[in-house]
Amino acid sequence: MQPEQIKKERAEDSAKLENRATLLVKCPDQPGIVSVLSTFLFRHQANIIESSRYSSNPENGTFFIRLEFTCEKLSSKAAEMEREFKLIADDYKMDYDFHYLSKRQRSAIYVSKELHCLLELLWEWQNGDLETDIAVVISNHEDAREIVESFGIPFYYLPANKDIRKEVERQQIALMKEYEVDVLILARYMQILTPDFVNHFESRIINIHHSFLPAFIGANPYDRAYKRGVKLIGATSHYVTNDLDEGPIIEQDVERVDHRDDVATLKKIGRQIERRVLTKAVKWHLEKRIIVEGNKTIVFH
Amino acid sequence: MQPEQIKKERAEDSAKLENRATLLVKCPDQPGIVSVLSTFLFRHQANIIESSRYSSNPENGTFFIRLEFTCEKLSSKAAEMEREFKLIADDYKMDYDFHYLSKRQRSAIYVSKELHCLLELLWEWQNGDLETDIAVVISNHEDAREIVESFGIPFYYLPANKDIRKEVERQQIALMKEYEVDVLILARYMQILTPDFVNHFESRIINIHHSFLPAFIGANPYDRAYKRGVKLIGATSHYVTNDLDEGPIIEQDVERVDHRDDVATLKKIGRQIERRVLTKAVKWHLEKRIIVEGNKTIVFH
Amino acid sequence: MQPEQIKKERAEDSAKLENRATLLVKCPDQPGIVSVLSTFLFRHQANIIESSRYSSNPENGTFFIRLEFTCEKLSSKAAEMEREFKLIADDYKMDYDFHYLSKRQRSAIYVSKELHCLLELLWEWQNGDLETDIAVVISNHEDAREIVESFGIPFYYLPANKDIRKEVERQQIALMKEYEVDVLILARYMQILTPDFVNHFESRIINIHHSFLPAFIGANPYDRAYKRGVKLIGATSHYVTNDLDEGPIIEQDVERVDHRDDVATLKKIGRQIERRVLTKAVKWHLEKRIIVEGNKTIVFH
Amino acid sequence: MQPEQIKKERAEDSAKLENRATLLVKCPDQPGIVSVLSTFLFRHQANIIESSRYSSNPENGTFFIRLEFTCEKLSSKAAEMEREFKLIADDYKMDYDFHYLSKRQRSAIYVSKELHCLLELLWEWQNGDLETDIAVVISNHEDAREIVESFGIPFYYLPANKDIRKEVERQQIALMKEYEVDVLILARYMQILTPDFVNHFESRIINIHHSFLPAFIGANPYDRAYKRGVKLIGATSHYVTNDLDEGPIIEQDVERVDHRDDVATLKKIGRQIERRVLTKAVKWHLEKRIIVEGNKTIVFH
Repeated sequence: MQPEQIKKERAEDSAKLENRATLLVKCPDQPGIVSVLSTFLFRHQANIIESSRYSSNPENGTFFIRLEFTCEKLSSKAAEMEREFKLIADDYKMDYDFHYLSKRQRSAIYVSKELHCLLELLWEWQNGDLETDIAVVISNHEDAREIVESFGIPFYYLPANKDIRKEVERQQIALMKEYEVDVLILARYMQILTPDFVNHFESRIINIHHSFLPAFIGANPYDRAYKRGVKLIGATSHYVTNDLDEGPIIEQDVERVDHRDDVATLKKIGRQIERRVLTKAVKWHLEKRIIVEGNKTIVFH
Repeated sequence: MQPEQIKKERAEDSAKLENRATLLVKCPDQPGIVSVLSTFLFRHQANIIESSRYSSNPENGTFFIRLEFTCEKLSSKAAEMEREFKLIADDYKMDYDFHYLSKRQRSAIYVSKELHCLLELLWEWQNGDLETDIAVVISNHEDAREIVESFGIPFYYLPANKDIRKEVERQQIALMKEYEVDVLILARYMQILTPDFVNHFESRIINIHHSFLPAFIGANPYDRAYKRGVKLIGATSHYVTNDLDEGPIIEQDVERVDHRDDVATLKKIGRQIERRVLTKAVKWHLEKRIIVEGNKTIVFH
Repeated sequence: MQPEQIKKERAEDSAKLENRATLLVKCPDQPGIVSVLSTFLFRHQANIIESSRYSSNPENGTFFIRLEFTCEKLSSKAAEMEREFKLIADDYKMDYDFHYLSKRQRSAIYVSKELHCLLELLWEWQNGDLETDIAVVISNHEDAREIVESFGIPFYYLPANKDIRKEVERQQIALMKEYEVDVLILARYMQILTPDFVNHFESRIINIHHSFLPAFIGANPYDRAYKRGVKLIGATSHYVTNDLDEGPIIEQDVERVDHRDDVATLKKIGRQIERRVLTKAVKWHLEKRIIVEGNKTIVFH
Repeated sequence: MQPEQIKKERAEDSAKLENRATLLVKCPDQPGIVSVLSTFLFRHQANIIESSRYSSNPENGTFFIRLEFTCEKLSSKAAEMEREFKLIADDYKMDYDFHYLSKRQRSAIYVSKELHCLLELLWEWQNGDLETDIAVVISNHEDAREIVESFGIPFYYLPANKDIRKEVERQQIALMKEYEVDVLILARYMQILTPDFVNHFESRIINIHHSFLPAFIGANPYDRAYKRGVKLIGATSHYVTNDLDEGPIIEQDVERVDHRDDVATLKKIGRQIERRVLTKAVKWHLEKRIIVEGNKTIVFH
């Protein structure tokens, strides 16, 4: 497919969702919250089509809910709804987030020399299964340029190493701003980010780590898995925080291996796990299915 | 543990749940249902602790919801709540079912010569993980008597074959009545039931079939799986209807096998699958997590 | 990567395997076979690096073995080895097959409008994980042309329907001959093949069926899985025979689904299963890990 | 079943295996080993029925093989075979181990208050699926006595704590000697063993750790898994060495969990994983399918 064709199809996908929205709410638990929320939506002629909730503790805990609803002429009513909702939110001490599905989130993919995760994301996006606009791809190598540009997506080569990190991150932040990026996807980017950078995009940087965390934090997890003789290897997608590989876990998966599998084979098997784990995590983020709470995630899938 | 001790512990488990209930609702989908339900519960000072919903179709479909709630002094308020709820239910054309968790459902286990599913259920029950009173065990063989009676559970030997089926089923129905049985669990009972018997306990007979349905309906599924050379074998738990192995599926699972596995090995591996699939299905039934809709199940787990 | 670059890398992969071969043997079981085979290889200074065997039955059954070995200057010794081996094979009534890994098998991929399986194969091939030369791609639609030709692989559009089947198959057979194709991969080709065509390529046509066979043989398996309310969906890769979807199964896998998943979602989940199941089956075929025995496969992975 | 009946059946199982043996070999890799071994067995009219091999490295590595064979009148020929084999073993610098399947290994199960792993082992043993004589059960609590003694198995209560460890271990070693125990199974024994004790039973103590090692080494893994917010929990069976939870891993498995699962639920799910992982590991040990190499295992399953 030509780049223009893909973009046209993705835009049509968005248009179909023009009356659809999600509402994420977090507040102190108390009786009556669901009643208030559902009555509010009902009054605005919104029809709930999906609803998931979680209480951290039956008594005295925190309440979380994700509502997905449709509403005729949503774009013209949204401002009024949000204004009115603010009053309820104040009453109940709610953190909340309205998201309109026709307004696709914009993503940046960061990649290094290993391209399998990038390719999986591009493929899912081209296929219409990833509801995002891939705004830009950033890499510290040139390997991905050709494939990325063939999709009509801007590609930036920015070298990365300890000495120039601050300067490179300044450029990256400028690019994120220029391209109005909502979410950063580290698709095997393999670079340490500074606290400044991480704080700038809190709970908006998704990483894939090539181990079953918290096992094998840090470098060379497949080599260490091989050396330890584990019988399953895994991958973990998580939000990036300033503790290396310690951020809130979004998704994990594993595959069986055995004594015959050398490090190269572990990497090959691992690539399959990484591809699907990162893609799932990104989809859930884009669909506003994830709430970060402390160092954990609530995932309403 | 002595039988008396187990029963005492199970009774204590129930007592702890005295203010807890579930409400299952099915009705034509329309805006405002969640609002009505949650407002009703709020008015009765009930606190929703779990809620799962499903619409068969965003427009013009059927709406299903399972609410689990706590409510102070529930036993003294239940009658009034139910009376009042009837009015709402009439308005919205709801099918519904209140279930009070302190009132444990009573189960009968039907078994033949293969005891692994029975033993798994007994073990989970003894352990406090199966919220039921096992009222009686019925078998067409004597093999299970010793273990069943050692738990203080009544055991009845009723021979079974085509010629005496009607008479035996009459006795079985009488026993189900005598022991006030809510749910019948066919733990590898391996006998065909008559339509009369099945209709008598609609959506209350849970079977485990030793294949991944709809593959290998009927007799000797492991032999046929071996002959077909499948690379995964499975088990399926379903409600019994008058179409053999065609009832609503509750749960399924599989395990990997290969060319080296003969029929005896398939059976051995299969026993592990059957144990966990049946146990899951029974738990979900007991926790009122299942709604049968047509020939399918909605399982809110 | 440019097509020339990929081909160059793949050729280098082959060159590295110039002293490596596999030997598949099938014969009536009897004591001493392993002794004869291993002594034969030892005499020729071949070093066994992998060996897998299977006896259909300890007594009076059939014996199967796959040996992978390295041997210095293999290409110059192969003819003599094969000549000598023929004597042993005659003695022990062996069917056997020597395969030299540096001589990559040539494959044809048949595809229709759904491209996910084709793309997975192309990606694995480009990546160096699929030891084959993709000689040609055949399709009854034009959708795949652009991507296929971008890899420098010839693409043929051959319309397909019942009325012209014989004529089209004649052209296909001619193409298979022209491109010296060893194995035909039906990557969601979705066309019935005639017995003539199937017999022409016995045990060399690999299909992916989008269900967990033998469940949902034939058309529209995802619709039927949805209607039946299964809790797992699957895909099956098998050799094509003249009984539709009844050929020897090579590999199967499943994923969990639930009542919320509509047919479109089942198809989306299914695509992931199909991709990995077909790719595994093709790899095992290319690595000579599969022996077809009756209507079953022995897979030495 | 009565204890006598179970023992009778298990003894009959053994008798059926009187002509069956395994031979495990480890030696420096070199051409011709398989030829030598298979020729040796052929000369003794032994028929190989299963054979698995592994080379740590195609060149200059270590070679491992497990052969399972049948041989008429094995008991009368075994001494001569072993004598003769010693000469080969010396030539090729082989470590080796003949094991006659009719001579069941004797096991001791160590348990604390959590009985699920013990019960699974007892059930598999009673069922004929665990080829061992359970010689004795040791516990630092009285909970298991009743069930163990009901199977006719001796039960010893030996209190355990840091202060009396040395003395208790002396008693345990004496009991292992008295009951001629071959393998020690720590079925959630939850006690630290001294280096002396561990060295006394090198590669013969099998533990189940309730996490996916190397994640959550040490105490309270489920609490820590909950706190970390992992999306899968696991269990690991390994040989005990003097580095806590760092011994060679035999088998691991995982189950999916989510944010709703509290620590009690994780433990419940974990019990199912622990049961099946430990049982598999024990079976493979009993069937001589495991070779310990450095801090890893080669498992020929």
